[in-house]
Amino acid sequence: MTKHTGKFITIEGTEGVGKSTNIAFIKEWFEAKNISLLHTREPGGTPMAEEIRELLLSKRDEQVDAKSELLLMYAARAQHVSQKIKPALEQGQWVLCDRFSDASFAYQGAGRALGLEKLVELDHWVLEGFKPDLTILLDLPVEIGLSRAQERGPVDRFEEEKIGFFEQVRNGYLQIAEQEPERVKVVDASGSLEEVQQQIKQVLIQFYEQQVSML
Amino acid sequence: MTKHTGKFITIEGTEGVGKSTNIAFIKEWFEAKNISLLHTREPGGTPMAEEIRELLLSKRDEQVDAKSELLLMYAARAQHVSQKIKPALEQGQWVLCDRFSDASFAYQGAGRALGLEKLVELDHWVLEGFKPDLTILLDLPVEIGLSRAQERGPVDRFEEEKIGFFEQVRNGYLQIAEQEPERVKVVDASGSLEEVQQQIKQVLIQFYEQQVSML
Ligand SMILES: Nc1ncnc2c1ncn2[C@@H]1O[C@H](COP(=O)(O)OP(=O)(O)OP(=O)(O)O)[C@@H](O)[C@H]1O
Ligand SMILES: Nc1ncnc2c1ncn2[C@@H]1O[C@H](COP(=O)(O)OP(=O)(O)OP(=O)(O)O)[C@@H](O)[C@H]1O
Ligand SMILES: [Mg+2]
Ligand SMILES: [Mg+2]
Repeated sequence: MTKHTGKFITIEGTEGVGKSTNIAFIKEWFEAKNISLLHTREPGGTPMAEEIRELLLSKRDEQVDAKSELLLMYAARAQHVSQKIKPALEQGQWVLCDRFSDASFAYQGAGRALGLEKLVELDHWVLEGFKPDLTILLDLPVEIGLSRAQERGPVDRFEEEKIGFFEQVRNGYLQIAEQEPERVKVVDASGSLEEVQQQIKQVLIQFYEQQVSML
Repeated sequence: MTKHTGKFITIEGTEGVGKSTNIAFIKEWFEAKNISLLHTREPGGTPMAEEIRELLLSKRDEQVDAKSELLLMYAARAQHVSQKIKPALEQGQWVLCDRFSDASFAYQGAGRALGLEKLVELDHWVLEGFKPDLTILLDLPVEIGLSRAQERGPVDRFEEEKIGFFEQVRNGYLQIAEQEPERVKVVDASGSLEEVQQQIKQVLIQFYEQQVSML
């Protein structure tokens, strides 16, 4: 019998859309199907990558160069993919990640206006085509997400940004979804948690049935 | 009168060849010509880049992915160049840096066997052709450098490497010098400090006269 590699699922969206909240729901849904998910997050996921995360999120007097920020993101990602995600997938383990490359495209590509072409080049240099099998994009008007996120406590270096920045990020995400409709499924995150989870469930059912049909 | 941009000088070599030791000598030589040098180092040079340096040099249980290491180096470099080196040069200030891109070519390209082509791609993505005007490469049999360095105290994550690694690094440096003889000047660092500084002085005289002749 050949051993199947695990599937790689990511959850994306601007601040406070409900990514972390819905991870438990997604895990439970798959567990009911006897599929356990390794839950991880970006930036981070290994001790070194978590140190890079700290470095990225801490506020500083120094202006942070857009390229430097992006290189730090991808340094964390390279470590995370090589040391944790790929080894898990190769053992047949499914992986669920809170943010991944699409966040860099949206935050550093669209938000920081580094240009998408520059982003694609770096992504290809680092990941050589490695992509999620499924991405759930929680979409929400920026103000609602920020107000949800602000209730949680002090803001980090990204959350300090102006509303216009997050509008660009949101548009960046929606653009990716338009370009890759097979992989990226948009979920309207403006409803109640129950309404959001109903939509997520539809996405999971569709994805799961696709996988089963390919066995 | 047009304002001239400063010159960018780097000093390179494997562990313990005498880079830090000879920086004072180089500074004094230029000061006698009324040129002050801004002295900086890599990885590091700005508060954020120094934090990245810490992250790179600290020993860890986790295996460090070669690409991740290289991306961290270039994250520090992008920050250093954009926030410190280029602004100084643009104001006419000369800059002297302890290690720069050539160290990545030698350590991560040759030493880690990532492949030089991969290195060139990333260097170009980040620096877009920005290079030192003069590089002084201190060359020394690896054992001598390591024994000099070890007398200084505890070793960091790079200094822990085996001798074969540093042999590759040394060869990587010599290869760069062969490819770019105009920019990279090799100095035999095996003699006494006085002998080494005599050679460095010759390199500086030649470089200085070239600059003067171009005014
Ligand atoms: N559908 C929803 N309706 C109302 N509140 C919600 C909904 N989903 C999540 N929340 C709340 O919004 C806040 C932010 O949610 P969560 O932390 O899951 O977002 P996130 O996308 O992970 O944010 P970040 O980008 O900052 O990590 C939490 O307080 C959460 O309880
Ligand atoms: N020509 C020389 N002969 C003998 N000892 C030397 C010579 N040059 C430097 N040293 C000594 O070798 C040691 C290493 O020198 P130094 O710290 O300058 O090297 P380095 O290239 O900066 O090392 P690192 O790569 O670790 O930064 C110091 O103790 C220094 O005093
Ligand atoms: Mg979250
Ligand atoms: Mg030194």
